[in-house]
Amino acid sequence: MSAGFAAPAVAALDWGTTRLRAWLIDGNGNVLAERRGDDGLITAREKGFSNVLEGHLTAMGAPDALPVIICGMAGSRQGWIEASYVTVPAPIGAILRGAARIEGERRDIRIVPGLAQRLADAPDVMRGEETQLAGAGLPEGGRHLVCMPGTHSKWVAVEDGAVAGFGTWPTGELFSVLSAHSILKHSLGEHPAPVAVDSPFFRQWCEQALGEGGDVTSRLFAIRAAGLLQDLKSEDAAACLSGLLIGGEIASARRRHGAGATSVVLVASGALAGLYQAAIGLAGLGLRTVDADEAVRAGLIEAARENGMIARTGAAP
Amino acid sequence: MSAGFAAPAVAALDWGTTRLRAWLIDGNGNVLAERRGDDGLITAREKGFSNVLEGHLTAMGAPDALPVIICGMAGSRQGWIEASYVTVPAPIGAILRGAARIEGERRDIRIVPGLAQRLADAPDVMRGEETQLAGAGLPEGGRHLVCMPGTHSKWVAVEDGAVAGFGTWPTGELFSVLSAHSILKHSLGEHPAPVAVDSPFFRQWCEQALGEGGDVTSRLFAIRAAGLLQDLKSEDAAACLSGLLIGGEIASARRRHGAGATSVVLVASGALAGLYQAAIGLAGLGLRTVDADEAVRAGLIEAARENGMIARTGAAP
Repeated sequence: MSAGFAAPAVAALDWGTTRLRAWLIDGNGNVLAERRGDDGLITAREKGFSNVLEGHLTAMGAPDALPVIICGMAGSRQGWIEASYVTVPAPIGAILRGAARIEGERRDIRIVPGLAQRLADAPDVMRGEETQLAGAGLPEGGRHLVCMPGTHSKWVAVEDGAVAGFGTWPTGELFSVLSAHSILKHSLGEHPAPVAVDSPFFRQWCEQALGEGGDVTSRLFAIRAAGLLQDLKSEDAAACLSGLLIGGEIASARRRHGAGATSVVLVASGALAGLYQAAIGLAGLGLRTVDADEAVRAGLIEAARENGMIARTGAAP
Repeated sequence: MSAGFAAPAVAALDWGTTRLRAWLIDGNGNVLAERRGDDGLITAREKGFSNVLEGHLTAMGAPDALPVIICGMAGSRQGWIEASYVTVPAPIGAILRGAARIEGERRDIRIVPGLAQRLADAPDVMRGEETQLAGAGLPEGGRHLVCMPGTHSKWVAVEDGAVAGFGTWPTGELFSVLSAHSILKHSLGEHPAPVAVDSPFFRQWCEQALGEGGDVTSRLFAIRAAGLLQDLKSEDAAACLSGLLIGGEIASARRRHGAGATSVVLVASGALAGLYQAAIGLAGLGLRTVDADEAVRAGLIEAARENGMIARTGAAP
């Protein structure tokens, strides 16, 4: 970050369901300040989106008239306003351009649209990941298979700078819902241990799932049975479930979106990045990892440029 | 049922996690009385298994010394006593023979063992379904693929009267857990409607899942997206989820256990039987349906015979 001599030109927010991150950006795309909060969409619906936003901006010392660019679930039907969806196939640049303006605020506040895949047999939507994708630094040409893991993992097929199609695998949600509410809670225990990337159970269940074309449900109960018949421990059961779900996701996504792909661009951070790196390696695919935090920030800066909130002529961040 | 002139020779109980059913059986295998209760394993752990059993037997007018044969989760580690598992492959008749006796009771009370598949890469267990299987009236020879749907659906490959292998698909549990605790609760609403077997949504999602080899997770989020993009109604969303999970189960089970199978023996009752009949038909498989209630009762009577509690010479029920 700079020493703070430059004046901010725009505030950028990644505003999700349970968390938000905010940055002050100067006219050259440099980060001047950063904040993180737990006041995602759920909290903001109670406190008011404008109140939450102004609280963070004040804490960062943002000027009154500073414009704001936002991505994520704040733009959903349950959010501040419903920003439109851009229908795919669509060029990545064009997605960012159509940010929706929030009326009645003293600032210029805009929310990046999401993506919609309006196929009768494969409807899908994303919000927030389109901005990560735009900031992932993909080459302008060629075909790329992009994986953005999380509660609802997104896999995107990119062709010559355009989103050709995408899909959602609710891997993170399945892990938490099954470990808390299904019979597997007896296997994993009340507080499932973090899964170690070098766990042999993670690797073994992941490898097996990679060979099953995305069939995950046939092996869920085996985790319970392994506890009864093979004395599987609770921390290892969590590794089995994680390996099964991630391996199944990769096998399924590759089948649907990765015909001929030999490598994956992984947009992820932290422990999740480690698990997906290991799993993608086990799948025999090449890998380039982009930090998800950096990608969304770069995408928001690009969105500020595309919407004329900061100059295109500035230096790259 | 008979007019009650015959004396009961044995009481038979299907004692599951949340429910039990009890019958008084005469020496010829005829049913003299029947009761149903909500005092399954969970309730019985509080009230005492012996108390619950004696209450039902008294209400049916059973003599003090009447022997009792039990199947189901009452024989699990969380049950009355842990009845052993018979390891597969095993002849179906031999499974019933090894019922475990409960010590310290004034009656002769025995619990049918469960089945265990002790494969390193496909551990599995069942309790209760082995008795349904024994009572399903399978021919003594040949190969048969048996489907017993429910909270944890079981598929069994039977070869010449022996269980060759089996698997568990937690389809019923996935439906209830996902509809109550995942993002799909917004799609299905608080009280998911019963799924109509002639719903075009059930059929369409089932057919699609049948073609996906058991890959279910790639299409879960599409139910949510269809609500956002295609105005899918909540009752239709429940039909989509049901069709997806059942179709996925059949595709996966067929891949794992049904190599070459052209028909399925379905052991099921009520609305679930209707949905699986439709789905198995969509899969292009032949079908013979056995009522699950009748199968478990017939299996318990056979278990009473195999354990010498009633004579083998009696007429078939």
